[in-house]
Amino acid sequence: MNTPELQNIHIQGAFWNRILNLVRDVMIPYQWEALNDQVKSAEPSHAIQNFRIATGEETGTHGGYVFQDSDLYKWIEAAANSLAQRPDPALTECVDEVVRLIEKAQGSDGYVNTYFTLVKPEDRWNDLLNCHELYCAGHLIEAAVAYWEATKKDRLLNVACRLADHINSIFGPAKRQKHGYPGHPEIELALVRLYQATSEGRYLSLSQYFIDERGQQPLYYDSPNREYNQFHKPVREQETAVGHAVRALYLYAGMADIALYTGDPVLRDACINLWNDVTQRQMYITGGVGSTHIGEAFTFDYDLPNDTAYAETCASIALMLFAQRMFVLDQDRRYADVIERILYNILLASMQLDGHRFFYANPQELWPERVQKNPSLEHIKPVRQPWFGCACCPPNIARTLTGLGKYIYTTFENAIYVHQFIPNEATLQLADQTVTVKMNTDYPWDGQTQILLSMSKPSSIQVYLRMPDWCAHASLMVNRKNMDADWHNGYMLLSLAGKETYTIDFMLDMPAQFIQAHPNLRADAGKLALMRGPMVYCFEQADNGENLSALFVQPDTAIESYSLEDLPSDIVALKLQGQQASLVGWNNTLYRPYRPDTDPVTLIAVPYAFWGNRKQGEMRVWMNTSQTESFRV
Amino acid sequence: MNTPELQNIHIQGAFWNRILNLVRDVMIPYQWEALNDQVKSAEPSHAIQNFRIATGEETGTHGGYVFQDSDLYKWIEAAANSLAQRPDPALTECVDEVVRLIEKAQGSDGYVNTYFTLVKPEDRWNDLLNCHELYCAGHLIEAAVAYWEATKKDRLLNVACRLADHINSIFGPAKRQKHGYPGHPEIELALVRLYQATSEGRYLSLSQYFIDERGQQPLYYDSPNREYNQFHKPVREQETAVGHAVRALYLYAGMADIALYTGDPVLRDACINLWNDVTQRQMYITGGVGSTHIGEAFTFDYDLPNDTAYAETCASIALMLFAQRMFVLDQDRRYADVIERILYNILLASMQLDGHRFFYANPQELWPERVQKNPSLEHIKPVRQPWFGCACCPPNIARTLTGLGKYIYTTFENAIYVHQFIPNEATLQLADQTVTVKMNTDYPWDGQTQILLSMSKPSSIQVYLRMPDWCAHASLMVNRKNMDADWHNGYMLLSLAGKETYTIDFMLDMPAQFIQAHPNLRADAGKLALMRGPMVYCFEQADNGENLSALFVQPDTAIESYSLEDLPSDIVALKLQGQQASLVGWNNTLYRPYRPDTDPVTLIAVPYAFWGNRKQGEMRVWMNTSQTESFRV
Repeated sequence: MNTPELQNIHIQGAFWNRILNLVRDVMIPYQWEALNDQVKSAEPSHAIQNFRIATGEETGTHGGYVFQDSDLYKWIEAAANSLAQRPDPALTECVDEVVRLIEKAQGSDGYVNTYFTLVKPEDRWNDLLNCHELYCAGHLIEAAVAYWEATKKDRLLNVACRLADHINSIFGPAKRQKHGYPGHPEIELALVRLYQATSEGRYLSLSQYFIDERGQQPLYYDSPNREYNQFHKPVREQETAVGHAVRALYLYAGMADIALYTGDPVLRDACINLWNDVTQRQMYITGGVGSTHIGEAFTFDYDLPNDTAYAETCASIALMLFAQRMFVLDQDRRYADVIERILYNILLASMQLDGHRFFYANPQELWPERVQKNPSLEHIKPVRQPWFGCACCPPNIARTLTGLGKYIYTTFENAIYVHQFIPNEATLQLADQTVTVKMNTDYPWDGQTQILLSMSKPSSIQVYLRMPDWCAHASLMVNRKNMDADWHNGYMLLSLAGKETYTIDFMLDMPAQFIQAHPNLRADAGKLALMRGPMVYCFEQADNGENLSALFVQPDTAIESYSLEDLPSDIVALKLQGQQASLVGWNNTLYRPYRPDTDPVTLIAVPYAFWGNRKQGEMRVWMNTSQTESFRV
Repeated sequence: MNTPELQNIHIQGAFWNRILNLVRDVMIPYQWEALNDQVKSAEPSHAIQNFRIATGEETGTHGGYVFQDSDLYKWIEAAANSLAQRPDPALTECVDEVVRLIEKAQGSDGYVNTYFTLVKPEDRWNDLLNCHELYCAGHLIEAAVAYWEATKKDRLLNVACRLADHINSIFGPAKRQKHGYPGHPEIELALVRLYQATSEGRYLSLSQYFIDERGQQPLYYDSPNREYNQFHKPVREQETAVGHAVRALYLYAGMADIALYTGDPVLRDACINLWNDVTQRQMYITGGVGSTHIGEAFTFDYDLPNDTAYAETCASIALMLFAQRMFVLDQDRRYADVIERILYNILLASMQLDGHRFFYANPQELWPERVQKNPSLEHIKPVRQPWFGCACCPPNIARTLTGLGKYIYTTFENAIYVHQFIPNEATLQLADQTVTVKMNTDYPWDGQTQILLSMSKPSSIQVYLRMPDWCAHASLMVNRKNMDADWHNGYMLLSLAGKETYTIDFMLDMPAQFIQAHPNLRADAGKLALMRGPMVYCFEQADNGENLSALFVQPDTAIESYSLEDLPSDIVALKLQGQQASLVGWNNTLYRPYRPDTDPVTLIAVPYAFWGNRKQGEMRVWMNTSQTESFRV
């Protein structure tokens, strides 16, 4: 199973070009300014300054959190991904300059971490539970591999290898070594990336060591809430997702990597159990995960409150990383379904259309006055923020979007899996041939996709096309002839042979449809959401006025596509008839005997991906329903 | 306007006798044990021990909060109210013993407070904002007045007067005096009670001083959240209820007292504005107030979440005290309506049917697993508790229920206002005669009430009967003849003359009915509650199984009265047909395109007053609805 290199995939089309150009032209330069403490409206990052101080090029003290270095590393990874697809000498210069700083800040033993170097040099590796040293190391490694993949420049990769070798000397089963593991997982999946880049087996073994050691008795460290850091049990015994959501999902991604390389069926089963728990019982419709801000954590099955939702952006990114690895373990559409759900909903929603502001927590319902006046909601921001003291999310968004090309295809022998419908031109290396692929589509607004395949020689090839979970009906033509495909775990399998080129036309029916939640998901009981294709819609005050809870949708109503003047014109909004509770006759009372009293009203819904791009106001995904007789049996 | 003395009102009937006998025979003795640290399953109170240490009769250090004395004072008030209606030599002995202790603990200057005496003798009156000295003094005064009213014993009243005189020397407008006011109001209404008992005008003036001084510039003290203690503005400028709910409502009760005695129209208007805000925009259907546990506070208009509801028992008791005083200012039924709502719902619900356990916070919806696993709900207890470290509520419940007789009637010249329909025999002193009243009723289960009036001589009398806000139709007979009454602010006015005895038969239609909330009350949008008479009903897991959110009520369904085997047989439960979302066909997915899929189900509702008296489980007041076509205009 291979993921094609980013260099070989060129993303096209209006939908993604708007976003990717924003990331390249605005977000990455903006974040560079932020990391250099040059954004006046934002809290200072200190991240690059810390390195300058650590190298002796500036004086001062460490600023920010113990994990401040990781913001810079994630930004390097974003820049590297961008450079893989579009050369940019000015950006290369910025990256090379910080690579020089990181290299200079590295100790002769391979150690790199500005917090410990500047603040607690005697305490290296002494507080694994809280101090994020291995977490920062993991992000350095990921950045180094990405920059090497993008540019073949190996200075940062060498820094990463020296650091990994140093860590490998400190941690391990030998008596002289520490038998610990990180309080914040991340290094596990990063070491596997380093193994993939270098083929050095010791990095894979070290990753496995961290995975296997976690939660073993006697515990290496302890705390009142072991679940928060996922060391309450050995990983193979973990069945439900608990604790800090980003930590959990980075860990599970690492577990999936190790399950693949070791072929350990018990670890594989644990991964599948955890996947099922997260995505079948603890995931918002937008792909958000982690219901509570207290500990930024999972709570328990079916507990998905909409207004207090934490649903941290980074947690959904971590779920994408987990999903990507799960597909390699278990070829089923559900992993790409979840990636699609995240991509077109919570991930896009986490950034403003101007590329300068971001959500950390992603509410599924917002009443701005309540955020301001009820202290239980103080973790919710009613509008996106320019930066954060704990700025994990913005560079994570950037590295994920610039790495979008990694989520479209997987190749295996002479097969191509097509997971995502994103217009692109790609060159894919199969066992027997090189294939160039051109995908044309207006997805997610339109369900029609055309894929042109050109092979280096006539030979047989299998193409697996994902049938998305939201789609009830698809049709398929190969070289303009209708074709019935075989089904394979949610993919339509085309076995093609004998020609050098094929034109595949793939049509997914994409009506707007009302969605209901599982009856155990109590926060959404009796409510309906609206989806069209992969996009979840929401209702905003900008279009529907105040008090969205007084609006009722009717499941049998017709839904029209619609274009709004105050959002980019290609964004498909929806228009439908609904009902609105009347305020007439309430006479200064809060409660009265029930009497039907609603007025017809025209409702407008916009994609959740683009909410909050107009004036601050209310937003709601799950709408109350005025149900017809048909609901009653 | 007079409230008859408790001695002159004897409450009868099965409904209230069960409760009042429980309070007298179980709750008051149990709380005595708790105050003496003799309840093994509960946290120690320290309240009486603190007095023994303060008097030198024991050694040790002060235990509990700075306001621990107030628990004992509220218990004395409860005992006094009970003794007013039923002599009990053993109880009298207990009270006299603690009166002796309090008297002995009082300083020669009149000061009483075990915390400051034992812990910070140099800091008396220095931290009014946080240290509850004036609050405790207020509860001592209320207890003293109640014990004097019940027994005419004046030892505690003398202690209270000495304390009040001491406070009057410390606080006031003179240069040598402190110009402060309490961080926790309570003394304001207590000083008015002391004035009513002693006719000493200085107590009324001191109360007015505290009311008038609050929030004046320059502020006497300050804190980041002025609204929490209601000193953000002078009281006459306060328009919405904010901050700690008990503090707010004790303050408003004191304001209403002062508005009455001074005739100040600006203060009266402020009271009416605050009343309207609390009861028309910030009150749960059960009479609960204070939406958030953070600061035990009001939040803002229409913000009444059901699951995280704080709705502290003491806050609703404070609202009863405010309501009682508002009626004297403004003769309208709405004050007695709110008292009734609290009495038959949140107040009764705050105690277990065994009299030993109590709710402090009163959720309007409970999912016990969520309370356990989602840290945002850690303030909610899924079952009543034996005692609390901060045990304000249990003795407050006891003093309120033993003082129930104060809420039934108000007399004024030759008029009797009948506020509550509670069977009793009373002797009421009017301007021209003494009237004995006998009220027979099975209220709240039945709407039929008979009132027998016997006067000492034939004379004219006005009887005002409250028409409750929940009632759409009533009929009335005087001496077996139908009669049309005049209406007076929600009371039916009967002007009777010429006879010595009257039999008034009063029939309130009491069907079970679905209730809807104001469209701005978002947490209840699209939901219905069930009421019958003054009782709000709820649905419990004990009768309806798990996951109450998957149940849908239908507003056009027939509702039958019903009796449950596992609750006392006189409690009227309700039985109705509803719908239940089917769990069939969900196939490991959280979300799917909507399709109608519910099964008919028989639902049982029980009075909220008696919820949580069976096995721990879910509870829900506001139910999702499966609405008929009629809802759609």
